[in-house]
Amino acid sequence: MTRTIAILTDFGTRDAYVGVMKAVMLRIAPDTRFIDITHSIQPQNVRQGAFTLLTCHRYFAPGTIFLVVVDPGVGSVRKPLAALADDYYFIGPDNGVLSYAVAEYLDAQIVELSNPAYWLSAVSGTFHGRDIFAPCAAHLAAGVSLAELGIPYDNYQRLAPPLLEIAGRKIAGEVLHIDRFGNAVTSIGELRRAATDGLYLIPPFSKDQHRYPVQTFAPSVTVQVKGFSLPGIRHTYSEVAPGEPLALVGSSGYLEIAVNQGSAANQLDLTTGDSIILEIG
Amino acid sequence: MTRTIAILTDFGTRDAYVGVMKAVMLRIAPDTRFIDITHSIQPQNVRQGAFTLLTCHRYFAPGTIFLVVVDPGVGSVRKPLAALADDYYFIGPDNGVLSYAVAEYLDAQIVELSNPAYWLSAVSGTFHGRDIFAPCAAHLAAGVSLAELGIPYDNYQRLAPPLLEIAGRKIAGEVLHIDRFGNAVTSIGELRRAATDGLYLIPPFSKDQHRYPVQTFAPSVTVQVKGFSLPGIRHTYSEVAPGEPLALVGSSGYLEIAVNQGSAANQLDLTTGDSIILEIG
Amino acid sequence: MTRTIAILTDFGTRDAYVGVMKAVMLRIAPDTRFIDITHSIQPQNVRQGAFTLLTCHRYFAPGTIFLVVVDPGVGSVRKPLAALADDYYFIGPDNGVLSYAVAEYLDAQIVELSNPAYWLSAVSGTFHGRDIFAPCAAHLAAGVSLAELGIPYDNYQRLAPPLLEIAGRKIAGEVLHIDRFGNAVTSIGELRRAATDGLYLIPPFSKDQHRYPVQTFAPSVTVQVKGFSLPGIRHTYSEVAPGEPLALVGSSGYLEIAVNQGSAANQLDLTTGDSIILEIG
Repeated sequence: MTRTIAILTDFGTRDAYVGVMKAVMLRIAPDTRFIDITHSIQPQNVRQGAFTLLTCHRYFAPGTIFLVVVDPGVGSVRKPLAALADDYYFIGPDNGVLSYAVAEYLDAQIVELSNPAYWLSAVSGTFHGRDIFAPCAAHLAAGVSLAELGIPYDNYQRLAPPLLEIAGRKIAGEVLHIDRFGNAVTSIGELRRAATDGLYLIPPFSKDQHRYPVQTFAPSVTVQVKGFSLPGIRHTYSEVAPGEPLALVGSSGYLEIAVNQGSAANQLDLTTGDSIILEIG
Repeated sequence: MTRTIAILTDFGTRDAYVGVMKAVMLRIAPDTRFIDITHSIQPQNVRQGAFTLLTCHRYFAPGTIFLVVVDPGVGSVRKPLAALADDYYFIGPDNGVLSYAVAEYLDAQIVELSNPAYWLSAVSGTFHGRDIFAPCAAHLAAGVSLAELGIPYDNYQRLAPPLLEIAGRKIAGEVLHIDRFGNAVTSIGELRRAATDGLYLIPPFSKDQHRYPVQTFAPSVTVQVKGFSLPGIRHTYSEVAPGEPLALVGSSGYLEIAVNQGSAANQLDLTTGDSIILEIG
Repeated sequence: MTRTIAILTDFGTRDAYVGVMKAVMLRIAPDTRFIDITHSIQPQNVRQGAFTLLTCHRYFAPGTIFLVVVDPGVGSVRKPLAALADDYYFIGPDNGVLSYAVAEYLDAQIVELSNPAYWLSAVSGTFHGRDIFAPCAAHLAAGVSLAELGIPYDNYQRLAPPLLEIAGRKIAGEVLHIDRFGNAVTSIGELRRAATDGLYLIPPFSKDQHRYPVQTFAPSVTVQVKGFSLPGIRHTYSEVAPGEPLALVGSSGYLEIAVNQGSAANQLDLTTGDSIILEIG
């Protein structure tokens, strides 16, 4: 069966790095399909890579192998890892880039890629994507088991979770990602109204759908960002006039700040890390 | 048989949007090949998407499915469409982005994607590419018929055609696209000399090769653009010295303004929409 | 068997040019896999294309067909070529873009693509990538032999090699490429210490591993670039503090100037062509 290796890096596409990783993998597992998630993670921005992997991976079929190389510490003591969780494989450095996705699963098995039999014969000090991660991904695709790749590894590095603080009727979050259209994806999930009382905040993509109850006295919601006050949470961009800003729950289940047919990042001067406050009632 | 889905969007490649659409499609039609046409249509520039689809689609094999997502009105009342024309399938929003290509065919069948059985089970208000268009494209690839996807749809939205006005010996057009090299692709087609009389303007890629007769009294042709006057229509860049501007019929059959080994867009300050006049005789 | 066509161009990804070449190839050889090496060679920078092909091609499996289109002289007298060397196929214009890679092999067979039976029926003056190079690559993938594509061609154009001058204990080179991370790849290869005497400079990727003996009286090495003096040759970025510059042998076997978790190009103001001096002892 053709296996899929989904690739997520900060390598860009102007050098041959991604092509070389694919070449290495095809020599090991010729019957493999590659899907490029993105190679435009900001250079060495581990957290952006972790967030992107978290939000996209569930759309892939079971059995998909995620090759994730955002690796500022390449060649240092940080370990190379592979994880198996809910029939997904994740491969990458132990710097937290896998941690948002792996933390979604209670029963993840993790190994250090300690078996050099599955690396390239010569390992450079600067390109483990080519020399260790890609070959191990390809060997998984060719049928090698996780246990053959290396020894169990428990204390993998976890990134601090994105800001999400609830105090009374205020929920504080942060801008996590600006997309191509200038939409600002935040760390605040979807609010749902329970049958019995108040509102619940649904953390997006959390496997157990843990709910944060939110006290509320009125149905109105306001989003505060960069001095702007946006009333209500919309469902589509076109609920406001072209050029107008709005808050809505985006396609990954996170609260987004957008401008209908425009760029919220430009118009509201938003950048990653900006504070956002959701006020209820 | 492996089916090809050719993808054309304004999603860029720095987010995971394109990868997620491919993931969704592979779950439905695992034996599918993807060809990326481009994801760098300017955000929400429907006309640029329509023109790109028009000029490239004929190079693809019969049976190709074109997934076209330039969709500023996502979530609003605009309908999602699929068309079958001359053994090509086109899928996208009813905002005109399919119209230049579909208008090439007299017998196109068009349906509204009204059957939710072929969508993802949850449809967002902001990403129909993932939730409706990609799944329907994949179901076509997996053998579902056009008629199963939805009900017939006749009055699809047509974009106004690019400017092409003929008055005596003057042909007026506009710059439609600036390519990576700074070549300016215009709306004016190829001139051919008939056996009997005068010149004919061949509208590029028009199926019926409708000809516009052009009165002419002399064999000379001049192209006027941004105050520059370019004599003659060349066949290759190297007919002028490096750094010199020229007019020639480009690879898609449109009159182009170029600079040999340079950028016409930079050197002649050209942008989309600029006026161009071709004077004959 | 599925053949791989690896594609290297200066076409960028914002136009449909690469997608159209793939469409043309799939019509001729439907069971073909494409790997994009990069399409971001600077427009018409033949030497950058040649260097990229040189450094990446050995990672691909035997039988790979390299389609290389950096072609400022398209439509002029320059010939279209195909070469077979050590079970790799190379296709591109005779302007030197293939020459760094082909020169690695003593027994390369080269033909001019002179047989129009393997071109598209209509050949434009501006896009031989689509009309000649891609179809010939696809016919090779479909089983056509090199000899069928055209007549033998001996005097192909060779680019001047990158600067590499050894004078006593000084080795002079140049910056050949700035990568996405701001690392500056130079023309100087790896130094190795022989068992018996002195140091040897190993020219990267040279098939016969020709060695340049370098006289040395002391084990110390210093790299001079843009007024900076970098002591020693490191193995990994993390051997210096974050933000500090260093010299190391990069993943392709060339001396690189880098900054740990930063951009050497920005911090040291490096560009292609900059001089670099390695002083020994």
